[in-house]
Amino acid sequence: MLRYAVIGSGAVGCFYGIRLAHAGARVQFLVRRDAAEARRHGWDLLSPEGDIHLAPVEVAADWSELAPCDVLLVAVKATANDDVLALLAEHADRLLAPDGAVLVVQNGMGAEPRYAQAAPGRVVLGGLAFLCAQRRDARTVEHLDFGALTIAAHAPAGPAGILPVMGAIAEDLARANTEAHLEVDLDRARWRKLMWNIPFNPLSVILGATTDELMADPMAVQLVRSLMSEVEQAARAEGHALPEDLAGDLLDATARMAPYSTSMRLDADAGRPMEVDAMLGEPLRRAARAGVAMPGVAVLHRQLSFLDRRRGQRRSHPPRHG
Amino acid sequence: MLRYAVIGSGAVGCFYGIRLAHAGARVQFLVRRDAAEARRHGWDLLSPEGDIHLAPVEVAADWSELAPCDVLLVAVKATANDDVLALLAEHADRLLAPDGAVLVVQNGMGAEPRYAQAAPGRVVLGGLAFLCAQRRDARTVEHLDFGALTIAAHAPAGPAGILPVMGAIAEDLARANTEAHLEVDLDRARWRKLMWNIPFNPLSVILGATTDELMADPMAVQLVRSLMSEVEQAARAEGHALPEDLAGDLLDATARMAPYSTSMRLDADAGRPMEVDAMLGEPLRRAARAGVAMPGVAVLHRQLSFLDRRRGQRRSHPPRHG
Repeated sequence: MLRYAVIGSGAVGCFYGIRLAHAGARVQFLVRRDAAEARRHGWDLLSPEGDIHLAPVEVAADWSELAPCDVLLVAVKATANDDVLALLAEHADRLLAPDGAVLVVQNGMGAEPRYAQAAPGRVVLGGLAFLCAQRRDARTVEHLDFGALTIAAHAPAGPAGILPVMGAIAEDLARANTEAHLEVDLDRARWRKLMWNIPFNPLSVILGATTDELMADPMAVQLVRSLMSEVEQAARAEGHALPEDLAGDLLDATARMAPYSTSMRLDADAGRPMEVDAMLGEPLRRAARAGVAMPGVAVLHRQLSFLDRRRGQRRSHPPRHG
Repeated sequence: MLRYAVIGSGAVGCFYGIRLAHAGARVQFLVRRDAAEARRHGWDLLSPEGDIHLAPVEVAADWSELAPCDVLLVAVKATANDDVLALLAEHADRLLAPDGAVLVVQNGMGAEPRYAQAAPGRVVLGGLAFLCAQRRDARTVEHLDFGALTIAAHAPAGPAGILPVMGAIAEDLARANTEAHLEVDLDRARWRKLMWNIPFNPLSVILGATTDELMADPMAVQLVRSLMSEVEQAARAEGHALPEDLAGDLLDATARMAPYSTSMRLDADAGRPMEVDAMLGEPLRRAARAGVAMPGVAVLHRQLSFLDRRRGQRRSHPPRHG
């Protein structure tokens, strides 16, 4: 199995990292807060698919404590990229095997080109986690539903195809009882995921609503549909044909889901900055470059920016990541 | 002076009614709640332009107690129109002098044609209150700022011009130390007021923000501007040329205003239904008929509809009006 270093010890990084470590991979975790707690007690991943108690957890409290690895799994919020990119630029050569890869598991758009710049010569992969999980406390991560990881390679121009390291990661994940989907076109995968994220994440914050509350309201469903249609047109303008009636399928799937607080809602409730630019700002810029307006998405973007800024003013100590 | 009956004893109806009564007009007030309190103590209008203690207040607890009048001043929320229209249809002939008028002082659009239908043969006027005032308790109305009333006549097709009754009302208001503006085109006046109301009322509720918080945030100001531009295009599509850079003027004026909770925000905070259809639904339908999309306004409409519906489910006893 490959050697992994997981940057970011939130629910996403812990979920995949704990499963990979439990399956026998060497996995180091960069843990800023609660490093001592993790070393002393290990971690619990509670899951309907089987609980895992991981001990010892291989903890690094700092980038300089990380050992060389094959895959640097970046699982921080998009709002923490600036910090992580600065540290990656400093440590990439030492940390990452020459044929190693940076796997950026993150919402929204726009991260991979920046990671490619910070780790020159290394493969950069984008990861899309279809996962409901949350950090419950310093020791415990709770897996609620789903868990598949979609992986596609970043390339400066056009699809990069399926690289060998992607196959190796998928095999490791399969051993770790975790579904992986390899795709040839990262942009298409990101647009496709944005079809769900762009309506539901902002609306869950702006309207203070869970997915089931939105799905129960005809006007909210109309709004979700029209936002999805804007995203679809932007994706198409960039040359990505999304599946026929993807919006209908996503709505049906959402109606069947258990009541769910989106990741942006969890960020908002926890007082963390929201992924406003990655999830809305960058897609709006890309759509505009492709000649497509997303007027409804633009409204959400400005509303969220207002809310995020006001909440930022109320946060006395902005959290640090990475 | 004319004889008035004021339907709706909220801040708007009380403000104009108390001033007119104080100036010597006969003014009856239909008071559903707190009628005994009003009869016993009278009402206080607290105002930077001079306080008024009105006693006795001529109170009618029911439509059947109202005496014939020249002007039926309807100052209820748009959400109460159904109730008021049913009672008006029943009482119009007895109540309103043959040359009498119904003056509908209300936000949004779409009320006047319905009032014309409920009071056949009578003049229907639209009133636009530029007024910051609030009911403080059963005895007291607080006037905060502004106060001018714009009046224009409803006509089934096109502007109706300045009718004699409008001049008589304006003279009464002048005697009552209150500014009145008579305009020839009701639709134009309503679109013009919607330029401010459509951005600021919904956003103040959706974002939980006062006008000064919105004006202090560049993204919120961008959003307000783009919404104003949509309203302006809809007005133009209906043939109404609004003043050059009205948006800029409105933003400047708003920046100079004292921090202000919009009427919709006051409704939301008080648990009352919001004027969603009058302020957003009807303008959207009119714009669509004129061939203009207002995509940003449509987002606000659906967001507010969701919030209003959810709040309605939480209200156990919906308030009655009229």
